[in-house]
Amino acid sequence: MYRQIADSIRDQVARGALGPGDRLPAIRDLARQLGVNRDTVALAYEQLASSGIVEASVGRGTFVAQPAADLADTAPLVPTLSPLTERLLAFERARPRFGSATDAVPMHSLVPDASLFPADEFRRVLNRVLQDQGPELLLYGGPQGHPGLRSVLSERFRRDGIDVDADGIVLCHGASQGISLTLRLFAEPGDVIAIEEPTYNNVLAATLALGIRTAPIPMRDGALDLTVLEHTLARPEVKALYTIPSFHNPLGTTTTVSHRRALLQIASKFHKPVIEDGYEADLRLAGRAVPPLAALDTTGGVCHLFSFSKSLFPGARIGAITAHGALVGALAALKAATDLSDALPLQAALAEFVTDGGYDRHLGRVRRVLLERRDALLAALESEMPEGTRWTRPDGGLQMWVELPPGFDTSDLLPDAVGAGVLFSPGAQFYPDGRPSSGLRLTYAMADSHAIRAGVRALANVVKARLAEAPRAARLHM
Amino acid sequence: MYRQIADSIRDQVARGALGPGDRLPAIRDLARQLGVNRDTVALAYEQLASSGIVEASVGRGTFVAQPAADLADTAPLVPTLSPLTERLLAFERARPRFGSATDAVPMHSLVPDASLFPADEFRRVLNRVLQDQGPELLLYGGPQGHPGLRSVLSERFRRDGIDVDADGIVLCHGASQGISLTLRLFAEPGDVIAIEEPTYNNVLAATLALGIRTAPIPMRDGALDLTVLEHTLARPEVKALYTIPSFHNPLGTTTTVSHRRALLQIASKFHKPVIEDGYEADLRLAGRAVPPLAALDTTGGVCHLFSFSKSLFPGARIGAITAHGALVGALAALKAATDLSDALPLQAALAEFVTDGGYDRHLGRVRRVLLERRDALLAALESEMPEGTRWTRPDGGLQMWVELPPGFDTSDLLPDAVGAGVLFSPGAQFYPDGRPSSGLRLTYAMADSHAIRAGVRALANVVKARLAEAPRAARLHM
Repeated sequence: MYRQIADSIRDQVARGALGPGDRLPAIRDLARQLGVNRDTVALAYEQLASSGIVEASVGRGTFVAQPAADLADTAPLVPTLSPLTERLLAFERARPRFGSATDAVPMHSLVPDASLFPADEFRRVLNRVLQDQGPELLLYGGPQGHPGLRSVLSERFRRDGIDVDADGIVLCHGASQGISLTLRLFAEPGDVIAIEEPTYNNVLAATLALGIRTAPIPMRDGALDLTVLEHTLARPEVKALYTIPSFHNPLGTTTTVSHRRALLQIASKFHKPVIEDGYEADLRLAGRAVPPLAALDTTGGVCHLFSFSKSLFPGARIGAITAHGALVGALAALKAATDLSDALPLQAALAEFVTDGGYDRHLGRVRRVLLERRDALLAALESEMPEGTRWTRPDGGLQMWVELPPGFDTSDLLPDAVGAGVLFSPGAQFYPDGRPSSGLRLTYAMADSHAIRAGVRALANVVKARLAEAPRAARLHM
Repeated sequence: MYRQIADSIRDQVARGALGPGDRLPAIRDLARQLGVNRDTVALAYEQLASSGIVEASVGRGTFVAQPAADLADTAPLVPTLSPLTERLLAFERARPRFGSATDAVPMHSLVPDASLFPADEFRRVLNRVLQDQGPELLLYGGPQGHPGLRSVLSERFRRDGIDVDADGIVLCHGASQGISLTLRLFAEPGDVIAIEEPTYNNVLAATLALGIRTAPIPMRDGALDLTVLEHTLARPEVKALYTIPSFHNPLGTTTTVSHRRALLQIASKFHKPVIEDGYEADLRLAGRAVPPLAALDTTGGVCHLFSFSKSLFPGARIGAITAHGALVGALAALKAATDLSDALPLQAALAEFVTDGGYDRHLGRVRRVLLERRDALLAALESEMPEGTRWTRPDGGLQMWVELPPGFDTSDLLPDAVGAGVLFSPGAQFYPDGRPSSGLRLTYAMADSHAIRAGVRALANVVKARLAEAPRAARLHM
């Protein structure tokens, strides 16, 4: 019934019988006139109002609105994106496309293996904390995040030698948000951040989107070149260094204590803060622990990033920034100005999961599996790859670097590899200038040992085929 | 046992018996020499390495590391924060301090009342989706977020007249992250965004932190001044308009359909996109629905922000941006470059909660409660406030604006009010220049009707006392 009334009025407007600014009958009057309930008329008017045909004016009545016609003929707006966003989009377009090769071995991916997730155990803990703490967990958290999880984390960090308590930690949305926040802490658009080259490709995306320039420091034997670092940090426009000293992404290498000490001395000499990305810190698989920069530092100038995304699962989106002094409050203000705070239920559950020992039990299991996969990968490379191929030997994390014989461009090799049944990350995407690279990143995150062996065999075959095809071209570049 | 070995070596290093670069005995040799298990010696070496005293060199052995002394005497680093971060901190310092007046009526807060949260119902849904979908939900989501929730939201948005499907939605971390992302979409540092004055104070924080300037457009009778808008959007450096047309924060007002149409025509005339903040869209309490700008727009230039934070609870940190065409991909790229993606478990649970009808049942309950509170607030203001006080009459949302007689500075009044037992938000914080304001924001989010009456009585008493104290000063400014 109310639809009939609404349609009839809509018709009158369409025919021009009712024009913009015309007053509709009062609800009471029209209801009496049509012999219907007032609510029915009110409902009709409401429907007309919500489609913008009429509008109510408090205390005056309901009127026919300005017709939409004057808007309908406006041309589609093509909004101008900010130049930073345009640059980010250009960067994204240059990322490799892996297509829908769903049966290829996924050695390109840093996404951990879902079959290893302690999903059920975590679900029970989450359910329990929501049952125990209820509505409180559904409020906004403070910008630093759940105090219980910060306290649990500070204990773990102290065991690694990092001198921090719960107040020195700002929880965030994975190490990735930690990167954005710490970059903004020190650098504004136009400023420069020193980075390693190659480095984590999402750091390149983050700096691009923020209008922050990068000063690349070459990696030599798996560690940044300290001579170049010294020259770079001396420049006043360089505001900080971003580095991944353990289980480097993409290289998989770990620096020595003496390299770390030397790095810190250079940073301290020029009063430049260091952003240390420890996103795989809990995934040491072999060898002895090397203290993080944040543990060796005595100046308070190191911000340490931590994440559960690789060692547990990414879906909780929980990472942490450790900082000192005034930096903590500044990070909290940046976090608040970005998205107020994070989801407390997941943080509270994770605090409980760590305290219960669930996280360490999981780490024990997952490290065993990953060590086996790493070893399978190293053995397969040893037995399959042609002479002249070199690779790193990671002591932890999920990735390693393979350097093909000179003359290869691994971006160019990727389509063949996909066809042969293996996915890898071409080296070019880890360089700020996207230069051709004979290197590539392989991961053992998602693929099991059996798949890894098949994947390396496929990769080796593709490389060997290329070498056989154009041995001279390959040799020419040597 | 391993501790004894580690301590003994630590001693030798401290005494200088072992110096930097000295080689420790091979594990095998020392174990034989001491008559202990090799693992015990290995553990001791590991402990020494993790505190940085020794370091291992692959294939060569374990060596005493460079002493920490050369670092220990470096001065504490006082890192230079980026100027943007410094400006943000200055803004944060200027926010009102409410102290620890825990028994005062919290009419300053936009945090919804936790006693109304359907916490148990949501917990059960969350538990069920994690049980059903398991590990998959603990992976990274795509940057646009959970497809199920996007699809459910697009249906709801379409009911409000917004023409969007699931692919046109980017989920984000509350409307607050939606604000940061859409600002960055159109403006880079130095660019200008047109805003309403007064406006949501966290928008001011977000623009400050991003280095984006603001062009304030005065609000007249609860809607932005269209003449000023026209002049502002004509300026090439102004890249977009941020507006809250329904249940304005802080004013509590809602604009008419014709005002919205006129606003869109001006935006379209200058090809400027509009960011429409609909963070309380689901909290209409009275009056007829007014179509959102995104429903009236035919150009594709409106980005609409939605949030569950006020209508359900903030703790899930879930909001949504609706956009058109190329803007969607650009928003997804910005989201990915900021924090990769959001937590899928909460998004999946919310999709289920909405589909099950749990959200609408909650909306029904909470709207009744809020309407009663709003009415209590309006009635209390009517009966308590001295002559010359005016206030808005919100049709929805959680806040309203009270304008005291001229001459008042509500920032200056706050301490008295806190003492008298009521908290409010002084108007100054909603102005970009923080100018003194005779206005203040009152909310009915956390306080029930009884508390609201007590709060308004306390406020009225404080205002009356001031008027009695300095009637002339108050009148002087009239």
